[in-house]
Amino acid sequence: MLNYTALVTLLAVAFYFYTGILVARARAEFGVKAPATAGHPDFERVFRVQMNTLEWTPIFLPALWLFARYVSDVGAAVIGLVWILGRVLYLAGYAEAADKRGRGFRIQAAAAGVLWIGALIGIVSRLLQGM
Amino acid sequence: MLNYTALVTLLAVAFYFYTGILVARARAEFGVKAPATAGHPDFERVFRVQMNTLEWTPIFLPALWLFARYVSDVGAAVIGLVWILGRVLYLAGYAEAADKRGRGFRIQAAAAGVLWIGALIGIVSRLLQGM
Amino acid sequence: MLNYTALVTLLAVAFYFYTGILVARARAEFGVKAPATAGHPDFERVFRVQMNTLEWTPIFLPALWLFARYVSDVGAAVIGLVWILGRVLYLAGYAEAADKRGRGFRIQAAAAGVLWIGALIGIVSRLLQGM
Repeated sequence: MLNYTALVTLLAVAFYFYTGILVARARAEFGVKAPATAGHPDFERVFRVQMNTLEWTPIFLPALWLFARYVSDVGAAVIGLVWILGRVLYLAGYAEAADKRGRGFRIQAAAAGVLWIGALIGIVSRLLQGM
Repeated sequence: MLNYTALVTLLAVAFYFYTGILVARARAEFGVKAPATAGHPDFERVFRVQMNTLEWTPIFLPALWLFARYVSDVGAAVIGLVWILGRVLYLAGYAEAADKRGRGFRIQAAAAGVLWIGALIGIVSRLLQGM
Repeated sequence: MLNYTALVTLLAVAFYFYTGILVARARAEFGVKAPATAGHPDFERVFRVQMNTLEWTPIFLPALWLFARYVSDVGAAVIGLVWILGRVLYLAGYAEAADKRGRGFRIQAAAAGVLWIGALIGIVSRLLQGM
């Protein structure tokens, strides 16, 4: 059982859920009624934070779990925490201004990249050992 | 093998696929040609049903599988069916009017919440036992 | 360990990441600044390629892994490669014109459908054997 990775997965899911709460609040605050997803730049930035987090989930979660499975449970969990930290900084920056989203974005992208490359090395090593 | 959870996952995937079919039909019916995703309120509501179901997938599927793994396969499958039911009601309500999406939304959110909390308890219990 | 499916998953993730790179490039090329996701038809088509790939991920990845688990690791990997091929053709076609996205779309949809149906047969067979 990959307990630490499972725990960090729940944390990442909770953070992602929170970005959706912020969108619901921004809908009310800036008067953007569903089903519209545009109409006020402050709403649109908050909406893009949720969407971008959603867009990265199919990169982050598979890479996280393959890293956990093929390399290390604790290692995956630690890098997963760095990803969440990057996401928090991205959220805080983007909520202020679109230009301030860069640093958090780069941190979460680097974390996802490390997970992906580590998983690749782990899988290929396993396949080569089986030959 | 978590057979019941696997079966409910396929069912959830099929329902989600069906929301995409409805979007394709609504494109034709209301004359919203790809790549546009706006232009007619009846189209936009159907599109938001698909998008919202997509948005909840990274919450639902990880919570479902962690619950199945750490708590119960049959339990996860039953709560997963409740989630799908909530999604069906959300679809039926939203297709009529944006204001009618609340009940189904709350049901699916409650189901996802139970899965998330149950999984958290299961993982933390396991970690504490290992100490 | 489902090594071949794991490898194809990383490949699919990398392809999906690449569609996001194309969106970032198209933002610069066609002057569509974040958080906007509309404003120029050439940008919108590239954005829809990423979004549609994202939309199909919750269909593809669960079906791929359940097929791998219940039917065949190598089989899942081969059909997964067909899915990626369909996605590449979809990208190439859609980037040219919205009307040229059909062939690639049908290939990836057929691959996902085979994975889903195969997984369903595998799970039901397992459940019936256990009775």
